[in-house]
Amino acid sequence: MNKKPLILITNDDGVQSKGIQSLIEAMNPFGEVVVLAPDSVRSGMSSAITSNFPLRVTLVKQEEGLTVYACNGTPVDCVKLAFNEILDRTPDLVVSGINHGSNSAICVIYSGTMGAAIEGCIFGVPSFGVSLTDHSPDADFSEAIKYTKIIAGKILKEGLPEGVCLNVNVPDIENIKGMKVCTQTTGRWTAEFMKSQDASGKDIYWLTGEFDNHNPDDENSDEWALSNNYVSIVPVKIDLTAYHVVNQLKHWEI
Amino acid sequence: MNKKPLILITNDDGVQSKGIQSLIEAMNPFGEVVVLAPDSVRSGMSSAITSNFPLRVTLVKQEEGLTVYACNGTPVDCVKLAFNEILDRTPDLVVSGINHGSNSAICVIYSGTMGAAIEGCIFGVPSFGVSLTDHSPDADFSEAIKYTKIIAGKILKEGLPEGVCLNVNVPDIENIKGMKVCTQTTGRWTAEFMKSQDASGKDIYWLTGEFDNHNPDDENSDEWALSNNYVSIVPVKIDLTAYHVVNQLKHWEI
Repeated sequence: MNKKPLILITNDDGVQSKGIQSLIEAMNPFGEVVVLAPDSVRSGMSSAITSNFPLRVTLVKQEEGLTVYACNGTPVDCVKLAFNEILDRTPDLVVSGINHGSNSAICVIYSGTMGAAIEGCIFGVPSFGVSLTDHSPDADFSEAIKYTKIIAGKILKEGLPEGVCLNVNVPDIENIKGMKVCTQTTGRWTAEFMKSQDASGKDIYWLTGEFDNHNPDDENSDEWALSNNYVSIVPVKIDLTAYHVVNQLKHWEI
Repeated sequence: MNKKPLILITNDDGVQSKGIQSLIEAMNPFGEVVVLAPDSVRSGMSSAITSNFPLRVTLVKQEEGLTVYACNGTPVDCVKLAFNEILDRTPDLVVSGINHGSNSAICVIYSGTMGAAIEGCIFGVPSFGVSLTDHSPDADFSEAIKYTKIIAGKILKEGLPEGVCLNVNVPDIENIKGMKVCTQTTGRWTAEFMKSQDASGKDIYWLTGEFDNHNPDDENSDEWALSNNYVSIVPVKIDLTAYHVVNQLKHWEI
């Protein structure tokens, strides 16, 4: 039996977003595509899971080589439901995105796009998340589609190391120089809230902020790659253990 | 000026939980305690952040050495609000918990308790999350309090390496053998949903599941420590880069 590769697609901007439509377009030539994605925006959901209300999966579209489902859960819920309940075989590849907006540097930790890719990796399937550094709903995904195809083709051919998925970010420019394998930029967000008042005069806070790059000259970092017109590819681990510290802590006298 | 240490406390079970009250009791002797925690249960929220509605912070209690705020956001929102808007100085320690239920192995990725500890670490402050392997609302936290005090005292004295926080899990037994510095157990959850029907006969899915330990004999792993009556301490990184793979991927001909 020579089945075509099965590709699971999800995202965190919702099943109707232009980004996921672009990803379907990118992945369609590679095999059978199943989309199981949130029914609306779930940005910044990280690896959140839902246990306090029941999840539902709704068939949105079924045609030759493409099935689309919507779900009322998080991106990780979508991946878990696909593997546990919906797919009739293990997928060959999980791709999450294309996200409207960057998920470079520390944003890998907050990103629902990357939460879904990490979940695919936890299931032992080659997985990557792809994001475009343009938040707008009608962003131009043509370059992101091109690089997504290149990376997907490579992964379907060669696989990925166990316990590692990829965080791919594509700069929103026309003349991309190529792709660069990078490390996660060191830095964090600052000035993270816009303080305001509601109609009754009570304080409210809206999440915003600026990224403070702690090492902007680090040519190995993903932020450097993006600001120098490269697609950044960071290999991401699901084992968070700080191995370099384990022995040091064993010497604590407690 | 010889100020007492400032300790920020949060959790994912909500400000009213027994676990956070136990944590306040544990940390009170060490300095000034500020609690900023979710106003209700936010389990499984990972490092999720809120950008689609305004956040509010409500003063719940103020007494000598203890201030308690509730927030309508996620555990990570609470830490971000504390650092950016509420605290008048940088805390010396961030402690998240005590969680009702284990956050060992791959659960570190889904855990709101650990999301908050990771966030404290992103702010550059020594941070740890602590969880008890008992989900019940009236769990006995006395042993967890004891070990939380030991670990907090050690960290306040010696600090933690940059970019590393601790994931502490305490077994729900009386005769704990001591503490063990561990690595994250390899494995994942299986059979993750209970499928049921709503009143109109439509399929619904409730998150559940069983942990499949891929290496139960690994004496370095946190699951081994817990099942052998030790408190497990896993040092956790905020840099997710799979450094061992970076050079390998650079040889991709793409």
